[in-house]
Amino acid sequence: MDSGLTVRFCTNETQNTREQFVQKLRVMGFDISVSHVFAPAPALVRIIRERHLRPHLLVHDGLMAEFEGVDTSSPNCVVIGDAADKFSYQNLNEAFRVLIGQEKPLLFSLGRGRYYKETDGLKLDVGVFMKALEYAGDVQAEVVGKPSADFFGTVLKDMSLQPHEVVMIGDDLVNDVGGAQSCGMKGIQVRTGKYRPSDEQHASVRADAYVDDLAAASHAILTVR
Amino acid sequence: MDSGLTVRFCTNETQNTREQFVQKLRVMGFDISVSHVFAPAPALVRIIRERHLRPHLLVHDGLMAEFEGVDTSSPNCVVIGDAADKFSYQNLNEAFRVLIGQEKPLLFSLGRGRYYKETDGLKLDVGVFMKALEYAGDVQAEVVGKPSADFFGTVLKDMSLQPHEVVMIGDDLVNDVGGAQSCGMKGIQVRTGKYRPSDEQHASVRADAYVDDLAAASHAILTVR
Repeated sequence: MDSGLTVRFCTNETQNTREQFVQKLRVMGFDISVSHVFAPAPALVRIIRERHLRPHLLVHDGLMAEFEGVDTSSPNCVVIGDAADKFSYQNLNEAFRVLIGQEKPLLFSLGRGRYYKETDGLKLDVGVFMKALEYAGDVQAEVVGKPSADFFGTVLKDMSLQPHEVVMIGDDLVNDVGGAQSCGMKGIQVRTGKYRPSDEQHASVRADAYVDDLAAASHAILTVR
Repeated sequence: MDSGLTVRFCTNETQNTREQFVQKLRVMGFDISVSHVFAPAPALVRIIRERHLRPHLLVHDGLMAEFEGVDTSSPNCVVIGDAADKFSYQNLNEAFRVLIGQEKPLLFSLGRGRYYKETDGLKLDVGVFMKALEYAGDVQAEVVGKPSADFFGTVLKDMSLQPHEVVMIGDDLVNDVGGAQSCGMKGIQVRTGKYRPSDEQHASVRADAYVDDLAAASHAILTVR
């Protein structure tokens, strides 16, 4: 970057691979590389390998490529992402049976979002089905992705920076701003995307700054540093 | 009944009407009338009429007859029952949109069960989707049916009996036994159906008696009264 700043992209996107995510941003004019994108699925694959787990995957077809080479035979844990239409009663039952069949049920959720907006209306996000399976299996899910501190920690390590040297910019007050602040970073909320005016009076999270858009956020950072 | 005891049947069945429920029991040799069966759907219909509500129904097709004559136009609340295969992503999104579109979202759940067993395996029950929609809509559901005190209260009133005069017999420790005990009744658990040996060491609910089956429960009641 011309500014000399180190930049990474953190997304909770779990309907597509990082490659597809980068392509989408390139079309919009962002010059970024896949290795600078941090998403829940690759973070989870790392956890799965470290802990020698075999997941039952209830994720979007578009995400499956991220799990290439992962052993899914005789599953001993359940992974859910934003599976959208694949969240059928049958698929939820199947995931539940894997869960309840374990001595210690283990559930991973790629994010904990409640809902998002698409052109044809509001859609339920992965967090809703996480809550469903948590109740069914009497288990607490491990959330991978924002706002997990482990997730942000991996990104900090990749940048070789300390939390106080880093600013997180996002439109999601709780997962972007609050998550980053919990790790010791500063958090700026942009008034675009899923931003809502009521965010500025939120009960527990207060951004270090609210700015109109990403350009304003960059300007603010370049000015004050 | 020969014994002179007053008997009522409380079920959380929400896949069929009371008529069908009674037919099933008649085949099994129980001589009961529909007016002695208490189920969540008719209890909810009473609430809906009292509060002049117009529900969006996400319930099993087999239950729809219980809602005959109920105004479902421009819905201002959401009702979920054990809808089974009708718990699709699309139907859940639709229920959620009705919920989030209200100034004060109002969600009714016909029971709060986690799962039940069918011949082809464990199935997720209505409570799981209640938790899902509660999280999505940031709302607490009103549960109709066991173990709701209102529900048991209606049955007591119908019998013109005081709680201490009544014994509840059931296979579900929390919803049958615990629910009845919370209302001041005695609760007996039968070691059939969904009974599990671990129920006898439950952290918060302790039945007044555990018996092998319904015949043993009747015998115990007839002997001690």
